[in-house]
Amino acid sequence: MTQMPLLALAAMLPVLAAVLLSITAASAASSRPHPLDPLSPAEITAVRAAVLASPLVPARPLTFHYVGLDEPDKADVLAYAYGSSSRPALPRRALVIARAGGQSHELRVDVAGNGSSAAVRSHAVHSGAGFPTLTLEEQFAAVALPPAYPPFVDSVRRRGVDMGDVLCAVFPVGWFGGDGDGPQRVAKMLCFVAGATANFYARPIEGVTMVVDLDRMAIVGFRDRVAYPVPKAEGTDYRADKVGPPVAGPQPAPGVVVQPEGGGFHIDGHVVRWANWEFHVGFDMRAGTVISMASVHDADAGTRRRVLYRGFVSEVFVPYMDPVEEWYYRTFLDAGEYGLGLWAFPLQHGADCPANAAYLDGYYAGQDGEPVAGENRICLFERYAGDVAWRHTEAGFPGQLITEVRPDVTLVVRMVVSPGNYDYILDWEFKTSGSIKFVVSLTGLLEVKATSYTHADEITADAHGTLVSENTLAIYHDHYVTYHLDLDIDGTNNSLVKNIITAKRNTGDPATGGADTPRRSYWTVRREVAETEADGQVDVNAGPPADLLFVNPSKKTRMGYEVGYRLITSGATAASVLADDDYPQRRASYTKKQVWVTPYSKPEKWAPGLYADQSTGDDSLAAWSKKKRGIRDEDIVLWYTLGLHHIPYQEDFPVMPTLSGGFELRPSNFFERNPILRTARGVVPGDVCPCNGTQVTLLV
Amino acid sequence: MTQMPLLALAAMLPVLAAVLLSITAASAASSRPHPLDPLSPAEITAVRAAVLASPLVPARPLTFHYVGLDEPDKADVLAYAYGSSSRPALPRRALVIARAGGQSHELRVDVAGNGSSAAVRSHAVHSGAGFPTLTLEEQFAAVALPPAYPPFVDSVRRRGVDMGDVLCAVFPVGWFGGDGDGPQRVAKMLCFVAGATANFYARPIEGVTMVVDLDRMAIVGFRDRVAYPVPKAEGTDYRADKVGPPVAGPQPAPGVVVQPEGGGFHIDGHVVRWANWEFHVGFDMRAGTVISMASVHDADAGTRRRVLYRGFVSEVFVPYMDPVEEWYYRTFLDAGEYGLGLWAFPLQHGADCPANAAYLDGYYAGQDGEPVAGENRICLFERYAGDVAWRHTEAGFPGQLITEVRPDVTLVVRMVVSPGNYDYILDWEFKTSGSIKFVVSLTGLLEVKATSYTHADEITADAHGTLVSENTLAIYHDHYVTYHLDLDIDGTNNSLVKNIITAKRNTGDPATGGADTPRRSYWTVRREVAETEADGQVDVNAGPPADLLFVNPSKKTRMGYEVGYRLITSGATAASVLADDDYPQRRASYTKKQVWVTPYSKPEKWAPGLYADQSTGDDSLAAWSKKKRGIRDEDIVLWYTLGLHHIPYQEDFPVMPTLSGGFELRPSNFFERNPILRTARGVVPGDVCPCNGTQVTLLV
Repeated sequence: MTQMPLLALAAMLPVLAAVLLSITAASAASSRPHPLDPLSPAEITAVRAAVLASPLVPARPLTFHYVGLDEPDKADVLAYAYGSSSRPALPRRALVIARAGGQSHELRVDVAGNGSSAAVRSHAVHSGAGFPTLTLEEQFAAVALPPAYPPFVDSVRRRGVDMGDVLCAVFPVGWFGGDGDGPQRVAKMLCFVAGATANFYARPIEGVTMVVDLDRMAIVGFRDRVAYPVPKAEGTDYRADKVGPPVAGPQPAPGVVVQPEGGGFHIDGHVVRWANWEFHVGFDMRAGTVISMASVHDADAGTRRRVLYRGFVSEVFVPYMDPVEEWYYRTFLDAGEYGLGLWAFPLQHGADCPANAAYLDGYYAGQDGEPVAGENRICLFERYAGDVAWRHTEAGFPGQLITEVRPDVTLVVRMVVSPGNYDYILDWEFKTSGSIKFVVSLTGLLEVKATSYTHADEITADAHGTLVSENTLAIYHDHYVTYHLDLDIDGTNNSLVKNIITAKRNTGDPATGGADTPRRSYWTVRREVAETEADGQVDVNAGPPADLLFVNPSKKTRMGYEVGYRLITSGATAASVLADDDYPQRRASYTKKQVWVTPYSKPEKWAPGLYADQSTGDDSLAAWSKKKRGIRDEDIVLWYTLGLHHIPYQEDFPVMPTLSGGFELRPSNFFERNPILRTARGVVPGDVCPCNGTQVTLLV
Repeated sequence: MTQMPLLALAAMLPVLAAVLLSITAASAASSRPHPLDPLSPAEITAVRAAVLASPLVPARPLTFHYVGLDEPDKADVLAYAYGSSSRPALPRRALVIARAGGQSHELRVDVAGNGSSAAVRSHAVHSGAGFPTLTLEEQFAAVALPPAYPPFVDSVRRRGVDMGDVLCAVFPVGWFGGDGDGPQRVAKMLCFVAGATANFYARPIEGVTMVVDLDRMAIVGFRDRVAYPVPKAEGTDYRADKVGPPVAGPQPAPGVVVQPEGGGFHIDGHVVRWANWEFHVGFDMRAGTVISMASVHDADAGTRRRVLYRGFVSEVFVPYMDPVEEWYYRTFLDAGEYGLGLWAFPLQHGADCPANAAYLDGYYAGQDGEPVAGENRICLFERYAGDVAWRHTEAGFPGQLITEVRPDVTLVVRMVVSPGNYDYILDWEFKTSGSIKFVVSLTGLLEVKATSYTHADEITADAHGTLVSENTLAIYHDHYVTYHLDLDIDGTNNSLVKNIITAKRNTGDPATGGADTPRRSYWTVRREVAETEADGQVDVNAGPPADLLFVNPSKKTRMGYEVGYRLITSGATAASVLADDDYPQRRASYTKKQVWVTPYSKPEKWAPGLYADQSTGDDSLAAWSKKKRGIRDEDIVLWYTLGLHHIPYQEDFPVMPTLSGGFELRPSNFFERNPILRTARGVVPGDVCPCNGTQVTLLV
């Protein structure tokens, strides 16, 4: 009668209850911490006490800008995880970056007894350019200053705006010359009008700029350069109760994924096990999600094999393209200046993540050093997107049609970061095929400039943006999301191999690959192994097309190929077009190429440097890579930058429909054959599947 | 206790039953045919009778190679669909391509009374190069010949192979010189050994080539050039009962999407209505799925707006990169030579498409002209992938955190085509944001060459492929999937606009867009409107980056921008690197650029020409585009070619995990603002949603 399969849902109810229990139980912290676990609340508390008790930094106030795990040496972690002997607990250590006495202090703190005690092990004062990540608290304190600052009060009054409707935000000043040594730790402050809308970013008080000294917490600069109408509130809000009732047009039906056998992943502390994958999920104030020690079970070989030692988003560079006074410095480094983990907020059940998701919290230190519980910062869910893992229909046998299909199910690890106006949905997607897909989805609010224009016809000079509403220019900008991926493909030492697609003329001579046929051309593969980090810099849009592989030269397949993974880009491969000598480009010069490969070096984590605020580029990926270090058969790190040039369009206003780009690391001669050949067929009509003791029959 | 939301499933059961009924009912054919409906079985039967009864083609046997809708003139269809007056039924007409008397005949046949009568309206004999699509029946007939062909029997015996295990397949000969006029309608035949495996493609009888005359149905050429070991059967099968039991490693949990309010789409004949979309789904022997008259409801304007008049896959070009005798001609045109609709097979419920899918059949004509029912050739389903449509978290209000999220649900229209060894999953994905995403997923079996090599170390000369198993080389090749997309963005006449990202030095002079600030560079947008079809040819990987927009120059947004859609690529942007003078490249020279834009011309449907088999390129997209026709403010067609260079890896054997690429057409100043601002919030915990009369409470 019907061809739609249907699970006998009543049979699933007890199973679903069991799923809930198992995920809840699994989310509880394990009693045996993993050496890469982020600092626990108790450990953060102990670190704070040790720092404040230390005589090494006597100045007060002392503010905590970064508190995070100073992870053990990689060799020790590998020995802990993969060594054959017993596993002695590794020492726990924290890295603290604090401000006190007008200086940036770096402290290493030993932590013992699960946070029962801690002691400062080393201390150094940062002497180069740049400042640490801004704290949330100092930004809240700064934005409270303008309403009591008389020149600003005047400017607001002159514009006819009610100060009660005004909200301000802190914008890093960037770097525009000088050696970066000794400047003030200042930031710009720009203000907006909320009033009837939650979308205050849409209503800038254009032309008014303040400068705040963050250490002194005082406004030290003010300019009211030019006045434009504050754009209207109407049409800017995005809250459900403000936009009017849902309309008949664009409403799809609600749906939810039901897993009759329960969820397939298990969380033990921070270690996640799912299908053939095992990895560690950490949380960091700056990087957000950190995935460590990802390994995949090779069912044919019967072994677990390493893929990635540690991976995270190292930086998000967002330069705007209007050179005027109020905009030229907007060249954000969201991870280094704001902190991706700090600006991640609770994920919404059933919306940010589907109903079958589990959640992890992230703990960080407040400015006072006390632990702050960030609830539901990371979600994990099995993704049933209706995709196919592999299939074939064979029509070649007379009178017989063979069809074999394996539906695809993947595991997604998601965080959403909302540093100000924008929202970044950052997904790690693990596939049973051994692939890891990285997806960045952009949404949120555009950063707009007030203007006198109310129609595009009025624009005569370069407006540097799109008029998305009356008096509202959405300024051109870029997004560069840079991943730090310490690949350990089947072992620590790897090489970068370029399999270059090379066009050939058919010479007719078999000795050169030709043949005596009418075919005139073909392509073949020229293999290049990168020797130094200069060879590891690749513009994926320039030169001949190539597969970029990361191989383990000491491990070969049965057929004799080096085992490897390859990089596959999936949109969003823009590179920066800023001038090389422009200041923001010097800070983030790595954005001219999507791929950089460097030898592993523990301090080289943050693409624009450890101290990103007002950084000059002297401690950056591009600077490190000038050392010409060898990267062949070394412990190497892939830095991949996903890039988009964003010309706004009216649809992006007042909140932007998601725009995604990504890339994939895919096994390529890593396995001897398709690793999911023996995967189960999934739920197909007529099947009776033993679902946790309950027989579930598919109706057809 | 737990933070996982759960729908009270028991409440859904009656609703789900209602969904089944409604989808089943909707799948039934509507009594009022749409002018773009594919020919019904009755119409195909009537067409056959009219052709066989016509005195215009007296020669026998007459074989039907193509029978499809000869769609009414676009102006008439538009008047029918969008005209304000009553809708007179449009005349129904079929295009038939038949072979008889050694000639290709083109017949236009008028059909009346829903297939109760038909009459040949016009007849022409094709005089240029090329032949029609091969029929399934002649391929089955051809592959039955070799076991009775003595030289082949000898070759098989000499190799020690049991003829009972041998299967052969038909391979088009391509074109390698001459004007293409007057050659025989021949094809190559290559044979394989099935034996213990269903994967006979993995076991070629390398070196033996036959040539079959398809009109005479006789073997007219034979060569046994060289012998290599037939690769082993072990490890090549992919059937569940042959690969051993599922292994513990890569098994994710089964899952199914449940829609408490029922499925949100409605199928009325071939017209699909879902959320804000309405479109017509057709089926064609050659193109497979055809999407017509896609329009989106603009909830803010209260109007339905046109996006796409007609779109389909025009061609799939797959050239292999080994110039030897047995491989040089393997330069497949899967749509034109084999037929995408002909090689689509029944979709597997719950595997090819999820449990919440509905299915459409596709009817085509057999070689004898009789209608053949192709069941379940197309599926439609709402995709709940866990994605986010838009979101924002606002942390800028003191003491308040605002988070608004809208989960994304999309509608997928899917067909799977398995022309021989490969499988193409071809998805159209409609989004409530107004985007259409096109995704091509490659899977299936590689085309391999037998070799004496058993290890990569033995390879000294260019092997033209990867040794995926002992004696088994997977040959390098490309995939080019070319879409014909007749865009009608908010009306018939459109223009191609290139928004070119243009780097600028900051001059300091506001008149040129500069400013007196330390910023040294920025980018802006240089707008270029394509005048002729030469301007419409774009290599998306060359030159400065650009947004490519398709705009309606006579319709502007409130802000004054031309309404438009833009093209966003998402991986798979390879272009052919074959020599321009090489024969396969001349046939498919459009594969050197991803984007071509031409003025609409009804006969220009098939990128390599109507007669693709042995085509020379004289009737092809590149040839048409030499006419320098205007494309500004004209009825234009976008031809987009998605391309991949495929270097095989061992994981691709014996069946390849899916590899996907795609592109998106995204509204860009089409709507006045985000068109899904007022979409519902979806299913979130604590909600009580009125589900078809039943209260469903989400447990949290």
